[in-house]
Amino acid sequence: MNLSPHRLIRAFCRQPVDRTPIWIMRQAGRYLPEYRAARKKAGSFLTLCKTAELASEVSLQPLARFDLDAVIIFTDILTIPDAMGLGLYFVEGEGPKFAKPIKTAADIRNLAIPDPMTELRYVCDAISLCRRELRDKVPIIGFSGSPWTLACYMLEGGSCREFKQIKTMLYQQPSLLHQLLNTLTLAIIQYLNAQLAAGAQVLMIFDTWGGLLTPSAYQTFSLNYMKKIISNLTREYQQQKIPIVLFTKGAGLSSLQKMADSGCDAIGLDWTVELGEARQYVGNQVALQGNMDPAVLYGSEEYIREEVSSILHSYGSNPGHVFNLGHGISPHTSTENVKFLVDTVHTLSSYWHKKNSIETNDTSISN
Amino acid sequence: MNLSPHRLIRAFCRQPVDRTPIWIMRQAGRYLPEYRAARKKAGSFLTLCKTAELASEVSLQPLARFDLDAVIIFTDILTIPDAMGLGLYFVEGEGPKFAKPIKTAADIRNLAIPDPMTELRYVCDAISLCRRELRDKVPIIGFSGSPWTLACYMLEGGSCREFKQIKTMLYQQPSLLHQLLNTLTLAIIQYLNAQLAAGAQVLMIFDTWGGLLTPSAYQTFSLNYMKKIISNLTREYQQQKIPIVLFTKGAGLSSLQKMADSGCDAIGLDWTVELGEARQYVGNQVALQGNMDPAVLYGSEEYIREEVSSILHSYGSNPGHVFNLGHGISPHTSTENVKFLVDTVHTLSSYWHKKNSIETNDTSISN
Repeated sequence: MNLSPHRLIRAFCRQPVDRTPIWIMRQAGRYLPEYRAARKKAGSFLTLCKTAELASEVSLQPLARFDLDAVIIFTDILTIPDAMGLGLYFVEGEGPKFAKPIKTAADIRNLAIPDPMTELRYVCDAISLCRRELRDKVPIIGFSGSPWTLACYMLEGGSCREFKQIKTMLYQQPSLLHQLLNTLTLAIIQYLNAQLAAGAQVLMIFDTWGGLLTPSAYQTFSLNYMKKIISNLTREYQQQKIPIVLFTKGAGLSSLQKMADSGCDAIGLDWTVELGEARQYVGNQVALQGNMDPAVLYGSEEYIREEVSSILHSYGSNPGHVFNLGHGISPHTSTENVKFLVDTVHTLSSYWHKKNSIETNDTSISN
Repeated sequence: MNLSPHRLIRAFCRQPVDRTPIWIMRQAGRYLPEYRAARKKAGSFLTLCKTAELASEVSLQPLARFDLDAVIIFTDILTIPDAMGLGLYFVEGEGPKFAKPIKTAADIRNLAIPDPMTELRYVCDAISLCRRELRDKVPIIGFSGSPWTLACYMLEGGSCREFKQIKTMLYQQPSLLHQLLNTLTLAIIQYLNAQLAAGAQVLMIFDTWGGLLTPSAYQTFSLNYMKKIISNLTREYQQQKIPIVLFTKGAGLSSLQKMADSGCDAIGLDWTVELGEARQYVGNQVALQGNMDPAVLYGSEEYIREEVSSILHSYGSNPGHVFNLGHGISPHTSTENVKFLVDTVHTLSSYWHKKNSIETNDTSISN
């Protein structure tokens, strides 16, 4: 396996880098005027997602403005249930909805696993286009929602606060829920492997709602299925390691060790834990991605610099950190602050990597 | 100081009990048909809160149905900002709103601390009525929102998802936010001490939104103010210890030790941490309250029993556990399941307390 030329991949593999790589969840999104223009031109969010040329264009937009270390493909986490026939649509200001949410056991039994090369071809095509366009400048990240997170939306019919449907099923008919999660797991494996074949160099699983669960239910209904996905993904492609990143929003410290044991290469963290403390929990098993509060970008440059510095300090000189926000960037963020963030991460982090290389070379300094 | 006759107070003081006490956050609420009838009669939620006789009646309702170990006064967490003149109102299905949210630095400067014996007298009167009615059957819990949580609502103008206003202030004008939090802290101290004088036997601080913060911002903008409140509350009244309970939803493990050091007697936990693990974090310094996922009550009796058993097992025989949900009970909960929960906690927990008293007496068993 070759050593990757990419800072991002090297950091995910816990190899030395010159500065901490950074990308931003939802970096192709509404805070960018050029994104809003593209969306307007497309007519709707879903047309933007489903037209490979437009999705590719939008994915690459942030790279023209900011010195980011990765591109993430622009698509929705609900493409799989949409391809399963649930009829994804969006109501302005209300988040995603399904025209035909799952109501019965028969609905679950009848779900067909979509063929990624036909029903989800638009995602793969967008990845291929991006990859070609990028000419290996930075790697491209493919992704999917986790089985638990997709199941939440599919049963609730959209975003919600209480998750009454799925939790009722969990505590009344767990075997039915397992059936749904199994189907989704198979679909996600095919989908992510297809993204990889199309050109994705990192794969990320977004478990937006896993943090809603008790630690034991999290393991049974979310983590176990992500584990199954990970063990069925291609981990090396064209002599390059394909890092896999797991992100459970709100997972907290107590599930970290179990996440690290899932076989993933990196864990994404939200801002409610300190990186240094998280590192103690997981040892040196995995890389860590995160974890600035997106709201810090509402602040002044002074506070942004302070937070970046404190996150880098908390992580320290241990290799394997990819800087990111702890959640998607807010549409209200100013692009100036994003630029300032990206540059500050690169500038301030070089200190820690110099330190790291000194420590690595000087055997008199103990770890 | 006398040993309390109440299971709840004894558990909060980490003294031996015959069975684990239980009460339920929002136990006087919409899932009860008699509550819905009272609210209909009152005409509005705020009239129900502000009419001491009605608030007292509603507070006592759950006790007529369930073998609960406490009554919590029925009122809203936003009574203080309402008394400060922000004009609290409710829109069906949308949560609380303020007619005059805080917009400027002058708004913060001009906030007056309400006199609990006049502007908030309805709460104190409701507590006194309840206390008289209860004839010491079970103790009554008084409460307030935390300064941070009140500030969130006051700046956002109601419930919201992004907390853009308060987080912008936090990262742009922290000293202004500190000014607001200081004013709220003084108001809460007076309010809670007045509740105590009116008859409250336990005081609880609800920090609903503290879990939105980074660990360091949580300490600076939420926990430090709760600490100041705790150190200014009367801790013993008429020769009885007044336990103080701190509940930060989503606090996670990493802030637990600092919460335990705040001077509180007990920490409320949501369901995303295991009680046994939490106990390891805080040692034997404080009692723990919680922490069943309210959604378990959507389940069958079989699963409710299983969860109760697993929570009691996770806590073990260490004294100082008060059973509760990890968040307010959902309006969709069946009253049968609540009855089943309360009885199951009492029945199953007696095993652990027997065990505890054996271990206490038998010095040959090491801890």
